[in-house]
Amino acid sequence: MHLEEAIRSRKSVRRFLPQTVSRDVIEAMLELAARAPSGNNIQPWIVHVVTGKVKQAISKDILDAIKTEPNQHQAEYDYYPGEWFEPYQARRRAVGFELFEQLGIARADREAREKQTLRNFEFFDAPVALFISLDRRLSLGSYVDLGMFIQNLLLVAREHDLHTCAQAAFAPFHRIVRHHIPLADEHLLVCAVSLGYEDPDALENMLQTPREVVSGFSEFHGF
Amino acid sequence: MHLEEAIRSRKSVRRFLPQTVSRDVIEAMLELAARAPSGNNIQPWIVHVVTGKVKQAISKDILDAIKTEPNQHQAEYDYYPGEWFEPYQARRRAVGFELFEQLGIARADREAREKQTLRNFEFFDAPVALFISLDRRLSLGSYVDLGMFIQNLLLVAREHDLHTCAQAAFAPFHRIVRHHIPLADEHLLVCAVSLGYEDPDALENMLQTPREVVSGFSEFHGF
Repeated sequence: MHLEEAIRSRKSVRRFLPQTVSRDVIEAMLELAARAPSGNNIQPWIVHVVTGKVKQAISKDILDAIKTEPNQHQAEYDYYPGEWFEPYQARRRAVGFELFEQLGIARADREAREKQTLRNFEFFDAPVALFISLDRRLSLGSYVDLGMFIQNLLLVAREHDLHTCAQAAFAPFHRIVRHHIPLADEHLLVCAVSLGYEDPDALENMLQTPREVVSGFSEFHGF
Repeated sequence: MHLEEAIRSRKSVRRFLPQTVSRDVIEAMLELAARAPSGNNIQPWIVHVVTGKVKQAISKDILDAIKTEPNQHQAEYDYYPGEWFEPYQARRRAVGFELFEQLGIARADREAREKQTLRNFEFFDAPVALFISLDRRLSLGSYVDLGMFIQNLLLVAREHDLHTCAQAAFAPFHRIVRHHIPLADEHLLVCAVSLGYEDPDALENMLQTPREVVSGFSEFHGF
């Protein structure tokens, strides 16, 4: 697949088909994604790939925990700031509203919105999920490095006709994830990436997220 | 260019040719790179592109500052941990030694090593540099988002037969960079990306950085 097509066709898929993905394909994806650069080439990414019963058990335990022990789970790092401000507040609201509108969920219908949010923890039906972590003793640059690796992974999925959804939503449930996969104490859970084949008929997958124009985030000097 | 070729041919180029890159090409690159995902689609990346006299003035002032006021400049964030540990210590040493060996610089030749390190601030002769920043009020996830954008940018450069070098080395000199480009107070300088055409004969550009095998950074569960 051409680079430009991979970049433009990548999107957050929120409903996957049941069709499985072989371990061989995932290993090939990881080998290529790991060509990402990292400061001093330290390669901080650590990946736990889950499928089948392990994946199902993680889903079940998280969904149970949300019902029975809400507010008892929190992430080991802050993906988002405590308080939002512009222009980021407007951008995040726009994409949230857009998704719910796409699904025919009214803004005031809190129950339907929460139900959709819980779909995160079913991995949007994806057959495979990759839990991405790094050593908590590393510093901020390793988060940048991790992002470079993750972007490679999302693009390489397209090469195999696969789609992805990167989900920070799993970060608060690291204790539950740790019950099911042997994540070392010093490894901090950053996010999951759901992986599989897109359901092309699903309304969730029609969402097209906007981007700022180039002049909105860049300036040229000396040209 | 095919995705796989873009990923595999990307490398940190440390000697560029003088041939310039047009603003049109850079704007097209930024438009495509900004298709990167970000948590809640907030698109935290802010880019200042410099060339010509502005770029030269930044180089000069940083090189002067390193001579006349060493230790008076520090980054606004920590890319690296204060103390290294394994396996990261071994990985960073390996790539450092490899570069100096490639250039015929003896490990004990501190002067030659420092001289090579200073080449960072000449942007390795690249005609263009992109300073990447984000709002300091954002949180850790925005560093991951920034990494996804940067990786797109590095790959898209390959589409135009261009090469890059992502350089955290500029972060300590944000005060000097601010003298030359209007970086807002709340915008934290994360890194620069040098951009241009590779000098194919330069020893610096022969370095091939190794990667861990897939089983060295991943585990499979439930397969």
